[in-house]
Amino acid sequence: MNKIEHIGIAVKNLNESNKLFASLFGKPNYKTETVVSEGVRTSFFKVGDNKVELLEATHEDSPIAKFLEKKGEGVHHIAFAVDDINAEVKRLVSEGFKVLNEIPKKGADNKLVVFLHPKTTNGVLIELCQEII
Amino acid sequence: MNKIEHIGIAVKNLNESNKLFASLFGKPNYKTETVVSEGVRTSFFKVGDNKVELLEATHEDSPIAKFLEKKGEGVHHIAFAVDDINAEVKRLVSEGFKVLNEIPKKGADNKLVVFLHPKTTNGVLIELCQEII
Repeated sequence: MNKIEHIGIAVKNLNESNKLFASLFGKPNYKTETVVSEGVRTSFFKVGDNKVELLEATHEDSPIAKFLEKKGEGVHHIAFAVDDINAEVKRLVSEGFKVLNEIPKKGADNKLVVFLHPKTTNGVLIELCQEII
Repeated sequence: MNKIEHIGIAVKNLNESNKLFASLFGKPNYKTETVVSEGVRTSFFKVGDNKVELLEATHEDSPIAKFLEKKGEGVHHIAFAVDDINAEVKRLVSEGFKVLNEIPKKGADNKLVVFLHPKTTNGVLIELCQEII
């Protein structure tokens, strides 16, 4: 794993949270993107070589809607950048980690992503992501 | 803010979690450190230019013990590196953010730290940290 690519934060109202995080970082988000398959509208901020991704549910069956209902606003996942997502998934599964999707899927920000089950990672939802070239 | 300096993860058993995160990252932690004033034993892993800090409570009144009781294991805080922590606190307070300690205190890993109140940051406990030179 090369770095923390981004931290995903679940928010109720993306427009309000965009203002809040723009104040926090002293600069606005640099893009928004909707991922229809995941039921999320996202917003990205750069912090040096890392990113913060805000996540708003687009409908009530979205995983983010369910997260908000259960836990409220806060950190939803941590994403680590990897060079070869298939090799990394293979390594982690052999180490005993469980994945939510073994086949990488298209996520936001031009990435292939795989999530690890938080029950095998101390309650932290971890995303592996590889840039699509 | 320069980068995500580290992500703090609350764990019940540091020895067990050290093994788990060593498997996850494919390498062991590079140090442990106890911060008596905070009631925590910490363990640090490097992931590129970022870090992951595991936090175990050293006694039952520790903030980490209370966090674990309330929320279970998971992400406890996100720390952003700043060059001038006093200037950054002043800026953020003027923007309406609330701080848990206005005067920076000595944290783990040779840092001066200030925490922002999660009620003003979408439920995320944010730490600002400045390297002590």
